[in-house]
Amino acid sequence: MTFLDMLRAAERQNGSMLCVGLDPEPTRFPAHYSGDVSKIYDFCAAIVDATADLVMAFKPQIAYFAAHRAEPQLERLIAHMRRAAPHVPVILDAKRGDIGSTAEQYAKEAFERYGADAVTLSPFMGFDSLQPYLRYHGKGAFLLCRTSNPGGDDLQSQRLASVEGTPLLYEHIARLAQGPWNLNGQLGLVVGATYPAELERVRALAPTLPLLIPGVGAQGGDCAATVRAAWRAAPGTSGEALDTLAPIIVNSSRAILYASSGADFAQAARREALATRDLLQAARQPA
Amino acid sequence: MTFLDMLRAAERQNGSMLCVGLDPEPTRFPAHYSGDVSKIYDFCAAIVDATADLVMAFKPQIAYFAAHRAEPQLERLIAHMRRAAPHVPVILDAKRGDIGSTAEQYAKEAFERYGADAVTLSPFMGFDSLQPYLRYHGKGAFLLCRTSNPGGDDLQSQRLASVEGTPLLYEHIARLAQGPWNLNGQLGLVVGATYPAELERVRALAPTLPLLIPGVGAQGGDCAATVRAAWRAAPGTSGEALDTLAPIIVNSSRAILYASSGADFAQAARREALATRDLLQAARQPA
Repeated sequence: MTFLDMLRAAERQNGSMLCVGLDPEPTRFPAHYSGDVSKIYDFCAAIVDATADLVMAFKPQIAYFAAHRAEPQLERLIAHMRRAAPHVPVILDAKRGDIGSTAEQYAKEAFERYGADAVTLSPFMGFDSLQPYLRYHGKGAFLLCRTSNPGGDDLQSQRLASVEGTPLLYEHIARLAQGPWNLNGQLGLVVGATYPAELERVRALAPTLPLLIPGVGAQGGDCAATVRAAWRAAPGTSGEALDTLAPIIVNSSRAILYASSGADFAQAARREALATRDLLQAARQPA
Repeated sequence: MTFLDMLRAAERQNGSMLCVGLDPEPTRFPAHYSGDVSKIYDFCAAIVDATADLVMAFKPQIAYFAAHRAEPQLERLIAHMRRAAPHVPVILDAKRGDIGSTAEQYAKEAFERYGADAVTLSPFMGFDSLQPYLRYHGKGAFLLCRTSNPGGDDLQSQRLASVEGTPLLYEHIARLAQGPWNLNGQLGLVVGATYPAELERVRALAPTLPLLIPGVGAQGGDCAATVRAAWRAAPGTSGEALDTLAPIIVNSSRAILYASSGADFAQAARREALATRDLLQAARQPA
């Protein structure tokens, strides 16, 4: 089963395009865990349990674990996801980018140590920096394309003078990922929900790629605008059978994780995840 | 003491522009350690001890530790560097790049958890992705500019149509780092030794920045060509007092670490480091 198959199966089973991002900040944990870095696993596992039937993917952000010497808790968390939600793919958000020999080590970290199904990568160092990940044939890799932060356009929105059609840098990356770089159909793109017009442009340039879309929730992206910009129905599908060939994975982290700072944080996370899932589903339109 | 002060002090004390990169691969360890991931610390500490008086910096590459669940060994290794070579700055090679809230976590990892003096970063996500690191005022940050791998030019050598002078992307990054992005003099650039003409171009665009230059040794870059391209004498210095205002940090990893696969690996590493240091020093020319 490829990563794309796994994504589409999870989308159908849970009726969801929502990805819950696991960015644990101990200072924002509910009172009984507050500030306790040893509770990262417990906090995240409770979120996983509360949302396992509502999501298309989980996306742990490795920085939040690394800052607190909590890599062993991340290992336990991913193992817990496999037990609690075996049908839900795990995207390790790491945004790695390095020369081949080093990329081999990062690929081993993501796919062997943590057993993630996909990883986020920076394309800045070019195709040979991506190849070691693509050698894991069942795995996926999402390349940064147009990121959700304000500074994303500092470089990504530069127009390229020597490429046919003078695309912007992020448009060029979308074309490379849709075409020559996508040797085995393993690539996707990361495009922020905060820029719907650019999201729509990426979808036009990369019609078959899965798009990982952060930026709804705490970052302010709009769910319905995101779906209108990036989700395209498969021809001939409608109603209950409405489906797509090119999934979007819409990530929300903080709005779900910290929906309540009380003992009811997991139930509050579930309510927020359910509401977000339903907003996303309702915005889908037949072709 | 700023990172730049620390670099220049180490350069003077050890008479060296050499950086030893610590990219430990257990399969390449000498026979008595071979394949044993629990010996990463021992192997690297022996290299540190053998080269502490010959180097301007140490550069552990975090991927090689992360792939083997060896973060605790990296912590111990950096603590050992502080004891064995307190005057030698430590550059954590991590090539991080993420939105602000995540970058805060990575900055905490690099500067608080590991206590590194500087970190390598990707500029792909723009200035706001760098700011959390720059809030640590004594610390340095090296931005990827023109990397040493063949695919580096896939994006980095694209010409930008809308920037004055239509620079290449890496030239634009060099200008941003020399100018508007360098709020507190903390920035440097990563430029591969494998492209001396581009290295010379970066030095012209960024005359005062420290340049971290990987690619000599196993990657094939030439020491003398590297120094000629990137090292500029401070006006009026010569002979024993020959000095620069803009250091270059020339990294070699594999050629030094694996100079011998026998029990003499540390002595062989020292010989290789000494030879490389001397080649680099000999290539310096007065202004």
